[in-house]
Amino acid sequence: MSNQTLNRQITLHSRPVGAPTAANFELKQSAVASPVAGQVLLRSLYLSLDPYMRGRMSDAKSYAAPVALGEVMLGATVSRVVSSQHPDYAEGELVLAYSGWQDYAISDGVGLSKLGSMARPSLALGALGMPGFTAYMGLLDIGLPKAGETVVVAAASGAVGSIVGQIAKLKGCYIVGIAGGADKCRSVVEELGFDVCIDHRSADFKQQLAAACPKGIDVYFENVGGAVFDAVLPLLNAAARIPVCGLIANYNDTALPEGPDRLGLLARTILTKRIKMQGFIIFDDYGHRYPEFFAQMSSWLQAGQIKFREDIVAGLEQAPQAFIGLLEGKNFGKLIVQIASDDELKA
Amino acid sequence: MSNQTLNRQITLHSRPVGAPTAANFELKQSAVASPVAGQVLLRSLYLSLDPYMRGRMSDAKSYAAPVALGEVMLGATVSRVVSSQHPDYAEGELVLAYSGWQDYAISDGVGLSKLGSMARPSLALGALGMPGFTAYMGLLDIGLPKAGETVVVAAASGAVGSIVGQIAKLKGCYIVGIAGGADKCRSVVEELGFDVCIDHRSADFKQQLAAACPKGIDVYFENVGGAVFDAVLPLLNAAARIPVCGLIANYNDTALPEGPDRLGLLARTILTKRIKMQGFIIFDDYGHRYPEFFAQMSSWLQAGQIKFREDIVAGLEQAPQAFIGLLEGKNFGKLIVQIASDDELKA
Repeated sequence: MSNQTLNRQITLHSRPVGAPTAANFELKQSAVASPVAGQVLLRSLYLSLDPYMRGRMSDAKSYAAPVALGEVMLGATVSRVVSSQHPDYAEGELVLAYSGWQDYAISDGVGLSKLGSMARPSLALGALGMPGFTAYMGLLDIGLPKAGETVVVAAASGAVGSIVGQIAKLKGCYIVGIAGGADKCRSVVEELGFDVCIDHRSADFKQQLAAACPKGIDVYFENVGGAVFDAVLPLLNAAARIPVCGLIANYNDTALPEGPDRLGLLARTILTKRIKMQGFIIFDDYGHRYPEFFAQMSSWLQAGQIKFREDIVAGLEQAPQAFIGLLEGKNFGKLIVQIASDDELKA
Repeated sequence: MSNQTLNRQITLHSRPVGAPTAANFELKQSAVASPVAGQVLLRSLYLSLDPYMRGRMSDAKSYAAPVALGEVMLGATVSRVVSSQHPDYAEGELVLAYSGWQDYAISDGVGLSKLGSMARPSLALGALGMPGFTAYMGLLDIGLPKAGETVVVAAASGAVGSIVGQIAKLKGCYIVGIAGGADKCRSVVEELGFDVCIDHRSADFKQQLAAACPKGIDVYFENVGGAVFDAVLPLLNAAARIPVCGLIANYNDTALPEGPDRLGLLARTILTKRIKMQGFIIFDDYGHRYPEFFAQMSSWLQAGQIKFREDIVAGLEQAPQAFIGLLEGKNFGKLIVQIASDDELKA
């Protein structure tokens, strides 16, 4: 995988209708480019796969431009500078980059962040990166959890949800996770310290969730939508807060579901229960608070107060299948593709 | 109307299904009670009629208990102390009370606020009372308007909406009102100073609203719901704020409308546009900030920077029809029932 003459790229071949399939992606190969003055050549070590990428595969109006057909799929990477014509970057340095789904990328330095000598650089894509930052700001700035409150976390075993629950626990809350499958639920309770975790695939999920929240729900961290939100809605307490981080259950939808139309019901619930429901895009809304987050999360990780599970898949060519599985809930922890070989990582 | 031996009361005779009718109310008469030690007898001068009362006529679960069948309809009043056995209150004093739809009430003083010598005491039910306070906190604390932004106000000629728009104008925003009928729209622009006002009864309301908001919508003050919200939704800008104060279009609904189900569409819009949608119940959420509001609003009213229109109906017996009309948008300004005679008001 460390052939320095060929660059493999996974591009968007066609836009998915519903769930993406392997046919929506294409593997291309080309010669590795050489940096000119002011540029660096980056070798991708790790690629982050995240649910938001599904949105960029469609050309529906959204907060960000879609990936163009034929272009490399976008994504954050931990990369190493392999050659540099840029005064600020030296060969061998590790950076957080947005190289996308490919082996190599040329960069003029814009948007790169130096990672220094991290013991576990993949954390820059997880607990110390976008997912961790999303969990931290969404929970603390929008969710405003208070000790003793009940916090419900959707996708509790995922990159964002697992951190949301652990931070809320540090704040003295009662934490109810929601995850898909008994193994994930067990891990969420036993490894991450949630008070309880409910399997949304259970036939009596609604009843189990209600039983797990005898005092109602004060904060619901929304990663999922769909049937999970439907079960949460009647349990919300007065003055509940709902940070809306993701709606993975709906990302592959091609049409609105059948009625009745419950839009007004949601508005009425927001009114009569004085609920705050707020979406956010982490770097747009909170970019200026990244240093505060980084310092706090580093300290929590070092002290073992926050644990973070990674689901690492080996090989760039595995990225499409891994991403398709992510949208189906098959990953268990933060999904990362290791693009470089083990030998390269040690280098 | 100032017979001091008989107390007329309008009670809830039956719960409405859909829109209330006169048959849901009953006029009862009884002897006026005499205060015992620690009590005052209050004469109602003005009664406030507000949309929230529709909710209290139903026994559906809500943020407040319903009015019991056979009980006096609830409501805020400006009342005069006519006899007092309470050390804190003297005969002749004006108070803000919650006497409901009746001529007289006995009070032990709990919940009464002294009004002093207001030149226009009915304002305690409007610009200086619950509607004005609702407009002030909802707009400023949840809506967070910034100079140059576009603020859209539903029910713009109503007690809350008319003040929302005028405050937003003082903050340097571009103000688009929505009201029912050409007369109301003209008044909203010419008397209240909104930049434009759209008639939601127009056949091309959606197109007119879009044309009136060429830069999109940054703050939408929600009093209405239904088709008005549907027209607003696609025009919302990124990071828009929606204080949810009322949903009068839906109060008489007996069932959810037909599909498709747009609950997920609303959630998705909140996510992708980073929208904040927040309900509030004014005294529960902001009671501690009433003095700040009162001082600021008094100053604006005195300086003529905020204008406030009242729609005063004479006679307690008119309250049911006036309230039914309120839910149909027939009032033009803050709806108030003058219960006392003109002579009594001068007394």
